[in-house]
Amino acid sequence: MAIALGANRYGKSGIRLATVDRDGERHAFTDLTIDVRLEGAFTPAHAEGDNSAILPTDTMRGACYALAREEPVGTPESFGLRLTTYLLEAAPAAELATVSLLQQPWERIAGDHPFTFSRAGGGLRTAIVSRGRSRDGDDVEVAAGVADLYVLKTSGSAFTGYLVDRFTTLPSAPDRILATSITATWRYTRLGLDYSQCADDVRRAVLDAFAGHDDSRSLQHTLWVMGEAVLASCPDVGDIHFSLPNQHHVPADLSPYGMDNPNRVFVATDRPFGVIEGTVTRDQR
Amino acid sequence: MAIALGANRYGKSGIRLATVDRDGERHAFTDLTIDVRLEGAFTPAHAEGDNSAILPTDTMRGACYALAREEPVGTPESFGLRLTTYLLEAAPAAELATVSLLQQPWERIAGDHPFTFSRAGGGLRTAIVSRGRSRDGDDVEVAAGVADLYVLKTSGSAFTGYLVDRFTTLPSAPDRILATSITATWRYTRLGLDYSQCADDVRRAVLDAFAGHDDSRSLQHTLWVMGEAVLASCPDVGDIHFSLPNQHHVPADLSPYGMDNPNRVFVATDRPFGVIEGTVTRDQR
Amino acid sequence: MAIALGANRYGKSGIRLATVDRDGERHAFTDLTIDVRLEGAFTPAHAEGDNSAILPTDTMRGACYALAREEPVGTPESFGLRLTTYLLEAAPAAELATVSLLQQPWERIAGDHPFTFSRAGGGLRTAIVSRGRSRDGDDVEVAAGVADLYVLKTSGSAFTGYLVDRFTTLPSAPDRILATSITATWRYTRLGLDYSQCADDVRRAVLDAFAGHDDSRSLQHTLWVMGEAVLASCPDVGDIHFSLPNQHHVPADLSPYGMDNPNRVFVATDRPFGVIEGTVTRDQR
Amino acid sequence: MAIALGANRYGKSGIRLATVDRDGERHAFTDLTIDVRLEGAFTPAHAEGDNSAILPTDTMRGACYALAREEPVGTPESFGLRLTTYLLEAAPAAELATVSLLQQPWERIAGDHPFTFSRAGGGLRTAIVSRGRSRDGDDVEVAAGVADLYVLKTSGSAFTGYLVDRFTTLPSAPDRILATSITATWRYTRLGLDYSQCADDVRRAVLDAFAGHDDSRSLQHTLWVMGEAVLASCPDVGDIHFSLPNQHHVPADLSPYGMDNPNRVFVATDRPFGVIEGTVTRDQR
Repeated sequence: MAIALGANRYGKSGIRLATVDRDGERHAFTDLTIDVRLEGAFTPAHAEGDNSAILPTDTMRGACYALAREEPVGTPESFGLRLTTYLLEAAPAAELATVSLLQQPWERIAGDHPFTFSRAGGGLRTAIVSRGRSRDGDDVEVAAGVADLYVLKTSGSAFTGYLVDRFTTLPSAPDRILATSITATWRYTRLGLDYSQCADDVRRAVLDAFAGHDDSRSLQHTLWVMGEAVLASCPDVGDIHFSLPNQHHVPADLSPYGMDNPNRVFVATDRPFGVIEGTVTRDQR
Repeated sequence: MAIALGANRYGKSGIRLATVDRDGERHAFTDLTIDVRLEGAFTPAHAEGDNSAILPTDTMRGACYALAREEPVGTPESFGLRLTTYLLEAAPAAELATVSLLQQPWERIAGDHPFTFSRAGGGLRTAIVSRGRSRDGDDVEVAAGVADLYVLKTSGSAFTGYLVDRFTTLPSAPDRILATSITATWRYTRLGLDYSQCADDVRRAVLDAFAGHDDSRSLQHTLWVMGEAVLASCPDVGDIHFSLPNQHHVPADLSPYGMDNPNRVFVATDRPFGVIEGTVTRDQR
Repeated sequence: MAIALGANRYGKSGIRLATVDRDGERHAFTDLTIDVRLEGAFTPAHAEGDNSAILPTDTMRGACYALAREEPVGTPESFGLRLTTYLLEAAPAAELATVSLLQQPWERIAGDHPFTFSRAGGGLRTAIVSRGRSRDGDDVEVAAGVADLYVLKTSGSAFTGYLVDRFTTLPSAPDRILATSITATWRYTRLGLDYSQCADDVRRAVLDAFAGHDDSRSLQHTLWVMGEAVLASCPDVGDIHFSLPNQHHVPADLSPYGMDNPNRVFVATDRPFGVIEGTVTRDQR
Repeated sequence: MAIALGANRYGKSGIRLATVDRDGERHAFTDLTIDVRLEGAFTPAHAEGDNSAILPTDTMRGACYALAREEPVGTPESFGLRLTTYLLEAAPAAELATVSLLQQPWERIAGDHPFTFSRAGGGLRTAIVSRGRSRDGDDVEVAAGVADLYVLKTSGSAFTGYLVDRFTTLPSAPDRILATSITATWRYTRLGLDYSQCADDVRRAVLDAFAGHDDSRSLQHTLWVMGEAVLASCPDVGDIHFSLPNQHHVPADLSPYGMDNPNRVFVATDRPFGVIEGTVTRDQR
């Protein structure tokens, strides 16, 4: 029987890198979790057990720590750019290197303390850098994102006018709680940006749009409005993808106790949950 | 600014459906977790807040329970086929319905008891059914899989001869522990199969190949051998994709205590972990 | 064979209660996860299957939602006080009712928006209320706490001078990263307090002590200093218990790459982790 | 202000130890996760930052691997006995050493293969060994247990006749699904037992009692019957503690669809869940 190797990739996940910048009077602390992947001409490793083209995943791990010592880590995006450059140099068989980075934010406590921090709320900062081997560098892609950004509004959200069939029992909700955990990834259309500034801008656009959208008719509707706000405020963002779980807050049925419940008391549910995913992009027409 | 909606989909995740078949003297218990997704012409919902084409995700949830009452659930694959048929009927704007099912296996305890069960080991059974609207039904795809199938071998596995660069410190391992949690998904080339028999066959081929491959030179190498075994033994499988974390067991360094360690005592590690992913397919040339 | 029932209790866990206070121009949102337990004379339920004294755990669940409608939830402590009162009334066989509450903090976004919130950082607020049946009410106990409060300092922490034996390889650390996730519970010595003010005060005392303790010689040492600060600043706290995982940040060994590492680059580890637990109390001598 | 140190302990959690016994033709694989705790005269460490009595938790970790090399690990109980002996020798200030062990079971695959394994179902084996300093060794305690043993019965279980109050809406259930994840810990009344045989016996007694109890009137009732069976079949067990979440399977309400549901289709729920905890002991009267 003839068989062939289809799409394949390999790498290391969950590399936990922390760095301290002690150069100033105030320390800076950076906390990253890094995933690395290589794709390319790795058929001999699979079909023949020939490892000569394989850069061990343990080396990918070691490289993260070594590169973090060679130069300051900087932004997740810039560290991803450096790491992908190294990976393509180190692994000649690789045609594409992809690095995903997740940064846990820490904030200073106790009155802007110089070296003491607490985990900040507001979700995680993410970046994805991929790099191919084209000579002119046009196959480097930098994307950034946020993850686990929990937001909720207690008014300004409805879900009505939907399709009804024989299995539909959902009551129409002219005023409901809208709650989600925003995971978004946006792609930049060029390199060399101030990535931290861009990330702050996108994040602010997302939150302001979520809060300001006081006529939300669905989570899809809010997704669109948030995407529009990002593209309007950030010219270097080409598109943005959202993955939005709908974390249902169901009004408690208090009628068995002879009580009404005018949208005051809710059962927060875990499962099942709705999932709304979509990309908002610039219209190319 | 002109913006457009790119790829999008929505649905319900984590629908927990259990059924009891009480028809015979021995009960059968089925335990499914179901994810539903619809894709199609949903731009008005996003751009205008027009929900008239939206089948609520709550209805998807309800349909799972109702369909399970209309007819016995049967295999995950057959239930996915029924559920996708319903979804396309119920949501005219949908062009593609995808249902992912995860079945928790339960085995009878206490000497083949008629109605008492314990969660079985050996991983979870999965299925993914997608259905489009072509008239001849040729856009129905059935895939099946296993997830969280933890396997380990204490001999017959090496990792040597790999590429060495300035950041490589990994010692060559002529005899190591190989441990992974197999998640695999294979696609069927036709419908109407005995899906439970096929799943058993693939599973047996995977496990026998893992155990029998006593010259493993890498996890990639073992992936290939397992894929080959599946394609050889199951003519209705077109390809199989594996996602294999490499759960490293590192020999403990006992030299500070004046002890040797000839592959007897290991540190089992969580993070970081290697990830090997690849598809083995029939050669079409 | 004669057998007997020893210590036993039962209840409901994971009750997810959310409420919206819509009375003012700005909504207030409260998000609680509640665990309920009853202890008492429940031997007949166990030994004879006699449920006549059993308040169903489903009723405990329902009571949370109903009581939240009867009156505003208020603080976790006050809601726990109300709920335990109800439980002892409803279940005559119960001799002790205990309610544990975990409050997820949400903060206003988008410039102090009236009805839009984001999950705040800084850990969770907890409360534990237990109530017995003594006539004078002296067996009501209110405890409060924080959970998952991640803090970290990059200087001012050492671990040296410890006991060394044949299995000790840990290098002495005169300057290390100290990182932990604070879970603390403190008991109040009287009722009728402003529980939110007290919780704020304790929390501030804990964080200020963590930050200000710039001569930490161990996590035990810091535990003591934090406890001392709480008891000094909060006269109504009788004792405080800390559970402190030591989330190790190990300097990366870069010597194989010919690099030094003067406390700049760290491997953040998950497992194993140290655990330091202790109670600081007022000296009764 | 005078403050004092109350109850305190410290140690290491999540030590992941795996060993391979290669002495015979068939390898044996042992997979343990170990938690270590010391209690004793550790006030100077807290109050003065004096670490001279502190055995580092890193040394506890190292000792696990070293002791596993000095002699075969054997049962979790016997390894816990060795480890506590070491700990009290190494840490003179400690008055009590406690070691908790969790063993992941692995079973041979592919026809009783000599060195290939798969994770087995049926829950985890646990042991807790504590040792004090009394001269005659009478303060050594060995307990054993199972964890995460998921069991379920589709008949033979009822919940009726319970107390009804103003917040009770639960329908009486003469025939329901009973599902739980058994976590149990039993204490031995003497040392020197065949701990694996005892664990097998207890486990079989628990499962047979769960299955055979075809008149269960509550989870409390089943707890009692399981405890009674263990004490009847295992003379060296002094008592047994169960922690039993009640994993509710609620009959789906299909009436909105015009369907009945005679106990065929269920919503499996995660939260909230009931919790039943109790100890069954030998009657000392």
